[in-house]
Parts: sequence; structure tokens; C-alpha cells
Amino acid sequence: MKQFRLINFFTLILLASILYSCNTELRQKEANDNAQDINIDPLPSWNEGQTKSAITTYVASVTTADSPDFIPIKDRIATFDNDGNLWSEQPAYFQLFFAIDRVKAMATDHPEWATEQPFKAVLENDMEELAKQGIPGLLKLVMATHAGNTTEEFKADVQGWVKTALHPTKKVTYDKLVYQPMLELLQYLRDNDFKTYVVSGGGVDFMRAFVTEIYGIPEEQIIGSRIKTSFEYNDGNPVIKRLPELEFIDDKEGKPLNIQKIIGKKPVFSSGNSDGDLQMMQWAASHTYKSFMLYVHHTDEVREWAYDRESHIGKLDKGLDQALKDGWTVIDMKNDWRVIYPFEK
Amino acid sequence: MKQFRLINFFTLILLASILYSCNTELRQKEANDNAQDINIDPLPSWNEGQTKSAITTYVASVTTADSPDFIPIKDRIATFDNDGNLWSEQPAYFQLFFAIDRVKAMATDHPEWATEQPFKAVLENDMEELAKQGIPGLLKLVMATHAGNTTEEFKADVQGWVKTALHPTKKVTYDKLVYQPMLELLQYLRDNDFKTYVVSGGGVDFMRAFVTEIYGIPEEQIIGSRIKTSFEYNDGNPVIKRLPELEFIDDKEGKPLNIQKIIGKKPVFSSGNSDGDLQMMQWAASHTYKSFMLYVHHTDEVREWAYDRESHIGKLDKGLDQALKDGWTVIDMKNDWRVIYPFEK
Repeated sequence: MKQFRLINFFTLILLASILYSCNTELRQKEANDNAQDINIDPLPSWNEGQTKSAITTYVASVTTADSPDFIPIKDRIATFDNDGNLWSEQPAYFQLFFAIDRVKAMATDHPEWATEQPFKAVLENDMEELAKQGIPGLLKLVMATHAGNTTEEFKADVQGWVKTALHPTKKVTYDKLVYQPMLELLQYLRDNDFKTYVVSGGGVDFMRAFVTEIYGIPEEQIIGSRIKTSFEYNDGNPVIKRLPELEFIDDKEGKPLNIQKIIGKKPVFSSGNSDGDLQMMQWAASHTYKSFMLYVHHTDEVREWAYDRESHIGKLDKGLDQALKDGWTVIDMKNDWRVIYPFEK
Repeated sequence: MKQFRLINFFTLILLASILYSCNTELRQKEANDNAQDINIDPLPSWNEGQTKSAITTYVASVTTADSPDFIPIKDRIATFDNDGNLWSEQPAYFQLFFAIDRVKAMATDHPEWATEQPFKAVLENDMEELAKQGIPGLLKLVMATHAGNTTEEFKADVQGWVKTALHPTKKVTYDKLVYQPMLELLQYLRDNDFKTYVVSGGGVDFMRAFVTEIYGIPEEQIIGSRIKTSFEYNDGNPVIKRLPELEFIDDKEGKPLNIQKIIGKKPVFSSGNSDGDLQMMQWAASHTYKSFMLYVHHTDEVREWAYDRESHIGKLDKGLDQALKDGWTVIDMKNDWRVIYPFEK
């Protein structure tokens, strides 16, 4: 466990700050024409209560043709943070485990890493030494595993990893650690003609490599941090090369900025779990349409993890204050969610 | 006309280089379920001939369930350049006219512009002097008219302008100068479950302000050049401020790079009219699926403009060579298009 406490610390200082820092006819036409059978619960993994009813009441109010809060379909933009919001993020961001695992997998082609930090520390599982390498060390780690290849090669790397790599404590592949209640919420929103987006501090190409089918969200609706790239014609077989330089960190202010750049519309539904999502929440809260701000509060130390204001990963402090002050909906994971992961169903 | 030749020269050197530099069941399910009545021509403004039949043959081949070239709906990504491809770009990019008109509209609040270049030149319609101001002058012009305000304010500026500003020679508002055959092509592709995108060297927020309804393309499917932005909480009324610094030029190599960043998929259908679109064409041409590359060749000096290899705007030279060599489809505007603009119908 000491190893993971060190990784926590490490990600606090480094990953968190770098990779993440983390008109009646028309209305009738656009009203929910795929209305669910009223007897079928669209959110079966959610316990009955204020949180669940706040969600369903909101969705009904903005999709009912004669409601004063009706929102046209084109403006039903829903944005979801990923780490700690759609899947777990403890004891460290999954993408850090990918970087560590990749260094080990790539080590045979890099004999120089046996004596070169931070690779030596990773290969020797010496997390204390790795932490000592600081930000320059982490950048070297990330760039060695995320750059220098083409977009297609990187995608294959991630897809190969996710098939076999096991989460250190849950002992399942990482793709199993998504939240069943959130999968249901995503589908419920789409059934009500919301366009669902991931807006994450995580690397966009890392996520796109395997979450589209799990979340039911296509590549073009996944937004994240990214490194610079270059185009090479390559004698008629063009490639896009991944360069070892950060281009955009999709966290904090970066989230509304990236939403404006890529979507060009303010979201009406925003969901996150940390202070890194606060600006996205504030942006949605300022919508002229009735909007919905949803925070996941990690309160289940048995089935998942319990952490908030003091956490080194997914710190929820200022965000929790504003949620309580402004009446945003806060999910109490322990009490609101009947199951956490799909395999618990 | 001298004025416009100078603007042409100006945009050659400056705008062009800066703002632009410019399995069976599933298949059956995804096959065109909105098949058009075979008796209704989806492209009525296109004359019969090789160009039109190349398009319709391609679309049929990739949307027919039992075709060896079938493409699943999720991969039917179509990307269109804007200037000179969906609307006219002569005698200068429309966005430059916007900048010039804005300087004139804003001049009463900027008495200092009466003596300060490049504003003085614009206010005195002295295009010769404006050209002398070079790249620094153009940047000052662009930043004074495109930055320093919020995204909402800029949108209102553009929307106000497009309602009244007239094109210098066509004497109609700029939104009238879209190509009717391309509007039909966009709709035809969407009817066949393609997702249509604009991928332009033009400013993304300039385009989004008024082309979504004209093209039937939502904000989130419009990609372009952009300047930097900042998020301000503004006591609970957050704004995104437009900063006077270029962030990304969506031209040449920038097009496939931006497509990968934002869409995350290679297009199967790519349409452009200049060498600035060549890399996007090459990227689509390298798809594992059968792809379609379409160049607009400006050959109609009577109804529109005729220009290609030697043009200062929308230069089509290397692109034309590769199109001819690789068998890409080239639209002969004069002979392939029955009408150019919607008002000619």
C-alpha cells in the first residue's frame, strides 16, 4: 500500500498538474418521441431518492413539449468528466498505470532505461525514486510512452494493454471499472435526445482507443488533453505522428474553453467529480436554458473509495462548496447507487 | 477593380499564409433506410455527366448492404472546405470584408484610428497603403475586430454584419453566395447517413455565427482556425474572452491534424477547392475504406469566377495535379453546375 500512497502523492503533484491538473409544432416534433414505457425504470442501478428524482424530473421538464423549460434537441448537450466520474480513478489515474506498464513492455527495446531515470525507477518498482524525479521525470515517462509513434500505433498500444492489464487492487481489466449507474444515465439522456460528450483531463487518444463502445459515445464526442502532432505524407501513406510536447490540458478553465472550441455550445447538463470540473459546472450553470449540474461524491469506502476535500486525486473541495451553496445535485455514491460496477449486477 | 486586385494580392501574401495560409445483419440495418424515391433527383442543380454519376455511384456503393465497399454509418465522415468550396471567396475572403467593415463600424469608438495604421488605410479605403502594412498590419486588423470581446459579443457582431453587409460586386448579402449544388450534396450525403463537417481555414466562430442553418450543419461539426481564449468566472456570469493571439491555423497540414484532434476519424469523403485542402484529400485518400475526393475547379468566369494555378486566393495547382494523376473527381463548375447560387434557381 505504501507504493500506492506514493503514487497518490506523485499524481497529486505531477499528473494532476500536468496531464490533467486535471414554437409549439417544433416543440411537439422535438419532444421525446422515444418516450420510455412508464413502467420501465431507465435508471435501475440508482436507488430511489432525491438524486434520482432530481435527474428524471429535470429531463422530463426540458423534453416535454409544453414545458416552460423545454430545450430544443440541438441544444441538449451533456458533458461528462471521465476519471472518477464514469470510471474509477484510484489508487492512481488508469492512464498512469498504462504509462508504467508500457515502460516495462518497451524496456527490451530500450536497454539504456536500466540505468536512466525515471525509467530505472519504474522498472525496479521504486515509486519513491520515481516521485523524486519530479515533473521532468513524469514528462519523460509520458512522452516515452505516448509520443514518438503514429496515432494508429498508439491506438494499438492502448488496445493491447486494456485487453490484459489488471487493476492493482480490483484485479480486473480497467475497462470493467466503469460505473453502471453512469452508463444508464448516459443511455437515458441519449434516449431523450441529449448528445453525450466525455470532457476529460485524460488523454483524448487514450480514451478514444477503447471507451467508445463501453460508453456508447463515438470518437468525435470524446474531448480530452492532447499532445502536439505532425502530418507526414509518407509517399502516399500519410501518418499523423505524436510529438513529445503537450498541446492542451483539458482541465479546470481548459474544460469550458475546449467545449467552446470543439462543440461551440454551452452544455445544459454537466457531470463531474472534482474541482477540475468546477469551471465546466459554472459554465453550464450560466446557461439561459435550465441546466443540470451533477457531482459524484465518492462516499463508498467498501465498494469503491471514499475521498473528497483532502484527496490527492479527484480533490472535491471548492466544487462541493459551490454545489451545496447553489443547490447542484450531489451523488452520494454509497447510498444513491445500488451497484457500482457492471459485474456487480 | 484595382482595389480588388490589391486585396487579392494582400490576401495572397497575408491572409492566405496566416488566417488560412488557407457483418450482414448490421449492414442490412445500417444500409440506407431512408432510400430516396428513385424518381427524385437528389442533385437537381447538377448537370448529368461524369461528375454527378461519380458521386451517386460512390454513395450507392458504400451504403448498399451487400456491397464489398459498404461503410458502417459511424465511419461515414464527410469533410468540406468552406471558402471557394461551399461559398465564393472572390474578390477576397468574406472574413476579410467583415474585418474591414468592422473597423469602419467601430471607428467612432476609436478616434485614434484616424491616424493609426493599418486602421487609417482601411478608413480611407486606401488598399495600397493597407497592403504596405504587411503581416503586422493584417494581424492588428484581425485582432482589433476578432478579439478583445467575449464569444457572445463576437457572435452578435458577425450576425449583425451578415444581415446588412453587401458583397462588393454581387451586391447581395454574403450568406446568399453559397453554392446551391453543394447544399444539395450536403443534404444528399446526410440522407445517406454521412456526418457532414466543415473543415475550413476560416475562423471557426465567424462561420458558426451564421452558417449552421444555411448548411444544415450544427456548430459542433464546424472546424476552423481559432484564436486563444480565456475563461472568466465574472461573479457567476462566466464569459469566454477572445484573446489577440492565433492558436491554430486550420489549413494545409492543419486540416488532417485538426480532423484527428476533433473528429478522431479519417474522413471517407473529402471536398475542397485549393492546395490548402490537399493534405485533407491525401488523408481521406489513404482510408482503408473506399473514399471519395472531390475538388471544385472554378471555371465559370461569367456566373462566378475562373481561377486555379495562378490565383492569389484559392490557388489550385499541386492539388489539381494530384487529382488528375490519382483520378480524384474534379468539378468543372461551368459545365457541371446548372445553377451556382440558390437565388438563380
